[in-house]
Amino acid sequence: MASELDPAFETLTQAPAGRTVISVDAMGGDRGPAAVVAGLALSVADLPDIDFILHGKEEELTPLLARRPTLRGRVTVVPTEGVVRMEDKPSQVLRTGSNTSMWSTIEAVREGKAKAAVSCGNTGALMAVSMIRLRKLPGVNRPAIACLWPSRGPKPFNVMLDVGADIKADAPDLLQYALMGASYARNGLGYARPRVGLLNVGTEDHKGRAELKQALDLIAGATEAGNFDFVGFVEGGDLPSAKVDVIVTDGFTGNIALKTGEGTAKLVGELLREALGGSFLSKIGALFAIGPLRRLQQRIDPRRVNGGVFLGLNGTVVKSHGSADATGVAAAIMLAYKLARSGFQERLAQRVASLAEAAQDADRGETINNNGNAE
Amino acid sequence: MASELDPAFETLTQAPAGRTVISVDAMGGDRGPAAVVAGLALSVADLPDIDFILHGKEEELTPLLARRPTLRGRVTVVPTEGVVRMEDKPSQVLRTGSNTSMWSTIEAVREGKAKAAVSCGNTGALMAVSMIRLRKLPGVNRPAIACLWPSRGPKPFNVMLDVGADIKADAPDLLQYALMGASYARNGLGYARPRVGLLNVGTEDHKGRAELKQALDLIAGATEAGNFDFVGFVEGGDLPSAKVDVIVTDGFTGNIALKTGEGTAKLVGELLREALGGSFLSKIGALFAIGPLRRLQQRIDPRRVNGGVFLGLNGTVVKSHGSADATGVAAAIMLAYKLARSGFQERLAQRVASLAEAAQDADRGETINNNGNAE
Repeated sequence: MASELDPAFETLTQAPAGRTVISVDAMGGDRGPAAVVAGLALSVADLPDIDFILHGKEEELTPLLARRPTLRGRVTVVPTEGVVRMEDKPSQVLRTGSNTSMWSTIEAVREGKAKAAVSCGNTGALMAVSMIRLRKLPGVNRPAIACLWPSRGPKPFNVMLDVGADIKADAPDLLQYALMGASYARNGLGYARPRVGLLNVGTEDHKGRAELKQALDLIAGATEAGNFDFVGFVEGGDLPSAKVDVIVTDGFTGNIALKTGEGTAKLVGELLREALGGSFLSKIGALFAIGPLRRLQQRIDPRRVNGGVFLGLNGTVVKSHGSADATGVAAAIMLAYKLARSGFQERLAQRVASLAEAAQDADRGETINNNGNAE
Repeated sequence: MASELDPAFETLTQAPAGRTVISVDAMGGDRGPAAVVAGLALSVADLPDIDFILHGKEEELTPLLARRPTLRGRVTVVPTEGVVRMEDKPSQVLRTGSNTSMWSTIEAVREGKAKAAVSCGNTGALMAVSMIRLRKLPGVNRPAIACLWPSRGPKPFNVMLDVGADIKADAPDLLQYALMGASYARNGLGYARPRVGLLNVGTEDHKGRAELKQALDLIAGATEAGNFDFVGFVEGGDLPSAKVDVIVTDGFTGNIALKTGEGTAKLVGELLREALGGSFLSKIGALFAIGPLRRLQQRIDPRRVNGGVFLGLNGTVVKSHGSADATGVAAAIMLAYKLARSGFQERLAQRVASLAEAAQDADRGETINNNGNAE
């Protein structure tokens, strides 16, 4: 399983010595703590130097952990009574949620006990708690969730953001997503100079909503400061394209696109199984073709690239799917582990700070220019 | 090829006698008139009673038609000099486009010479020309484009709208899409009482933008007048779901979702070919499994379900993909042919008119109620 994400992280060779602690929310996912504990067990098989702080109801976790001998001595349970449910409103969780497993999971990162956090819970609540407890990186206006998308390009994944941190974004927000997404692609995925595209209903400059036309100009003017190339508008069909590495969109559209793509891949996978199970001949065929077909299925299986990263906070938080099973949880943990060991968080903070500085410099330059100009 | 769309139109048994004339725009698609003429040739192989009015540059069309003996005597060419390009703005086409093949294609429907129109051209321009020349159905505020989506349900397709007629929609527009989409599903696709869902970033009532929460209430209150069931919010992963038949969204989101789904299916198809061509063993396997795999590929091939229908106009217009090849053009023509022969247009007009009447009645009832109520 480790090999699934490895190619995307080929630049992360200077891993620090010692053990890496990941803080994991055991509650709040659709499949409950059993799937999370099973995901932990899958992870330790690949990662001998990972440890966990696990947050949730002790009476449920203790028997689950007892059945997993490979987890012995590697999991510290922090007992929490409250559980954030999928239907809870973020505002309500902020008021009354300090006793929940989700809150406790983020708190362990804030206190420096863990290098990164993983939760399968309510996305809106997780973002709200992360925002309040970890706070935004200096220079960041609106954090975003970035996901990975299978790519036809030289690297196995493209990045898309925002896929659900917020339901809207204006033009300056979209510019910031471009900067953060490029930084993630460069520092986390090893793209030297990522190519950024802005998601729209057509590639012609006049297409789309007003804020997109405005963002087109803003992003085009920031390519040097942000150290990326800009390919302009891209369409839904370009998400896996080799012509773009980072796709920028608002969180509403990004979330619909993410779930549509995953749903389509899942449907095709089902139809494939159905087609190959249909007749005796096709079963024989499937037997011969089983190796390549299994690799294909792994490549299109949304669980294998499970895990969105919250960008723009003082700490790494990976949001796993609500419906993640053990494989999905393990994929999210792998992503958190890789990011924790890469020093990505520190590099992103540096990059954003220097970008904010560059923007201030540009503002000053602009002011001087405006003063010198009679118009 | 006819069998691809047949199951969705199983109720359309009372086809009128005589020949069916379809008006086809030969220009403006990414692959030029050669792909369109090849699509015509594919169509006549399946449809012995179809004839065409073909609009475009005579000097290009004449040699293309001369090479297709099966089209002899079945195509009337209307020579037009102008071509709407993909980058032309709709407003500009409305001002100066009356000499274009697209305009002429719609005009043939307006004049009653053809029963339905097909174009691969610029969507925005096609919608603008169709709006101006065919005009909106009485009772319709904003037309929409509906597409078909492969479904896990008892019927092979779900309907999604709007997928690009407009880039935004407020709550009353979304209600109208629900009514029109349900009418299309009932009259065109044979769903007795379609289940309508509203596309959002989550299924909980508090999720999403303000207009979506408002539309949720509006649509929930219109199920009896509109003769459909309402399943509430659905997500991107539900587009092929068996729990919903008609998915309602704004044209921006719908367009991104449509192209994302198609792009994902195309990617998976490529990976499948790649996987099965990889080794000697997998080639043997593919040989045995070739029948089921080919059927699968046809089912996920976006060209096979090519064709969006403009809903809410006085005339049937099918928008084919800009990049449609012969197979894609033939699929769009098949859809236009089926709709033309079904009497769908007349039934939709009746339905919308009676719905507008019902809404007026409801308004009157509401007024009376408000008058009787002191609050």
